[in-house]
Amino acid sequence: MEKLRIAQIAPLIERVPPEKYGGTERVVYHLTEELVRRGHNVTLFATGDSLTSARLVALVDKGLRLGGREFSCFHCSMSELTRAYQEMSGAFDVIHSHLEYMTFPFAASSRIPTVMTFHGRLDNPDIVRLMQQYRQLHFVSISNAQRLPVFDVPWAGTVYHGYPLADFSFQPDAGDYFAYLGRISPEKAPDEAIRIAIDADVPLRIAAKIDPVDQGYFNEVVRPLMTHPLIEYVGELGEHDKLELLQHARGLLNPINWPEPFGLVMIEALACGTPVIVRACGSAPEIITHGRDGFVCHDHKGFVEAVHRIGEIDRARCRKTFESRFTVAHMVAGYERIYERLLYGDQVRRTGVFPPVLEKGVDRVTLR
Amino acid sequence: MEKLRIAQIAPLIERVPPEKYGGTERVVYHLTEELVRRGHNVTLFATGDSLTSARLVALVDKGLRLGGREFSCFHCSMSELTRAYQEMSGAFDVIHSHLEYMTFPFAASSRIPTVMTFHGRLDNPDIVRLMQQYRQLHFVSISNAQRLPVFDVPWAGTVYHGYPLADFSFQPDAGDYFAYLGRISPEKAPDEAIRIAIDADVPLRIAAKIDPVDQGYFNEVVRPLMTHPLIEYVGELGEHDKLELLQHARGLLNPINWPEPFGLVMIEALACGTPVIVRACGSAPEIITHGRDGFVCHDHKGFVEAVHRIGEIDRARCRKTFESRFTVAHMVAGYERIYERLLYGDQVRRTGVFPPVLEKGVDRVTLR
Repeated sequence: MEKLRIAQIAPLIERVPPEKYGGTERVVYHLTEELVRRGHNVTLFATGDSLTSARLVALVDKGLRLGGREFSCFHCSMSELTRAYQEMSGAFDVIHSHLEYMTFPFAASSRIPTVMTFHGRLDNPDIVRLMQQYRQLHFVSISNAQRLPVFDVPWAGTVYHGYPLADFSFQPDAGDYFAYLGRISPEKAPDEAIRIAIDADVPLRIAAKIDPVDQGYFNEVVRPLMTHPLIEYVGELGEHDKLELLQHARGLLNPINWPEPFGLVMIEALACGTPVIVRACGSAPEIITHGRDGFVCHDHKGFVEAVHRIGEIDRARCRKTFESRFTVAHMVAGYERIYERLLYGDQVRRTGVFPPVLEKGVDRVTLR
Repeated sequence: MEKLRIAQIAPLIERVPPEKYGGTERVVYHLTEELVRRGHNVTLFATGDSLTSARLVALVDKGLRLGGREFSCFHCSMSELTRAYQEMSGAFDVIHSHLEYMTFPFAASSRIPTVMTFHGRLDNPDIVRLMQQYRQLHFVSISNAQRLPVFDVPWAGTVYHGYPLADFSFQPDAGDYFAYLGRISPEKAPDEAIRIAIDADVPLRIAAKIDPVDQGYFNEVVRPLMTHPLIEYVGELGEHDKLELLQHARGLLNPINWPEPFGLVMIEALACGTPVIVRACGSAPEIITHGRDGFVCHDHKGFVEAVHRIGEIDRARCRKTFESRFTVAHMVAGYERIYERLLYGDQVRRTGVFPPVLEKGVDRVTLR
């Protein structure tokens, strides 16, 4: 497709890519790198210590969370949007914002088309009302399930997150343990993961960060369960150790208890060849095909049975699911198609012909 | 002056007026009532249970703090601004927002002039940068001290807060105790108020709310000091009991330890005839004239001396300060002048004549 001048607007709470936790910043990193690789002229609005091949516009030196400046996050993000929309807008063909709602008044009053990816859950009536007020904008969901609470706005599409093929090496032979990765929080349900492992009599390794808000839940609910000899807590891991843990796991235990918008950890597991055992919440049934990529379960008994049946899943097939649906190439092709539709929509409607941007293997990129 | 169609946009965190704590909502209440009384056509954007003589536009049923919906505050406020600026903007001559920074992109892209009152402290470089990006807007400070960190934008003026004369009855005869009113928080320094009372050997009554974030400070620093027989903690008081407490106090002990933007409690005390002993922080020296309305102190020794000298202050003179500087009439005349300047600025500049909106006794309303 034609090369575009694209602004990517990232949150400032973490570096791009994040040093540890930070799914949005990780996705923005890979998206930006691949857009540059494909020849687009990309400007990344992010923290000053971000790593990028794009032109970097930094409103703050480093991630506000690790820098202890979370208080300023709102003001800094407003400054960032102002820089993009009011001070530099002539420089872009399209603006792609990951700042969600704060972007609305900027996008609504700008002549530059904006693509907005929502990274969080939307099942809140106050969010639904706000999005309905801006239904003329171009919203992108990261799973079809995510958009269910806001079904009556004209979504521009669903684009699944994707990772570079080369970042994950396939591991055909698993170790003996299962893995839990993520945050220690009630909605991610590590306590249930522990109970499943104990009842199924398999070792479980837990790698997770604990936010201050979840310290009480950790102390009162999770920590008492961790004394069991099958359970090992290894803390918040860096990228390399996380991959190591995933690659050698027999399966990822992911008994989430909330409407997960996407769930990066699931495609990280698949990329290593590790099957995923997940509750049928949010995006899970879209990402994991039951009986092929792992198991989609409904209750405790189902999880325990799934653990026992993990040997039925072909690890090479898990890797193939990743390669055929969840790479950066798929993600970027999805966004390119949406950018193009926004910019050349009239032409497309007139000729009935889409510019040839969809690569083979891209699926589930739905357009309005 | 000409009657205007005015939108007042209040925060949604508390009712207008607030049930207990909530300075901004209290000011918006009095401002709105007085504007209606003067014949303006006022629309108040606030919670549905707000009390007002204006037309009410409510995006939520009741205050989000007491309703346990603080999480939704951002989304609801964005919806509120969208309603005002995008769905109803044709209905107003001027929009007066109390939502601060969130208002910026709306105001910047609207043809309706916006007046923005800042209610909080501004001494944060991220706030300063953001305000500089919107220097074309019309900012109002609530004290001259408040604007010091953002001195190089063209402020539209300072308008002090004001209360209705009739809401406070002058009490010539004081009781034997001093009073502390406000939040229990390190920046308000109730612990220092206690130490001053103990060292000066006078009774102190403390009426204050405790936010969850300050519970640790209360438990560790303040509570141990409260066991002294001179100290009495009476909790968070409703409006009537608060006035009762203030009226009969010999003085208000206000050893704030932060750049107070205004300090409503000081004019509440003056309205009752109660002198104020305050640290020379933020707005204090503008509000309190040392030796006339109370004392402006610099250190612990100064505070203890001021307590001993409280009999030198004429309570009737304190009330007179309130009547001549801090009534609703003064506040509204200040805002009317700013609205008029925004709307008829060109005419004023051409003729060199201001419309006759300033009432006798209005002081310190500075215009750019």
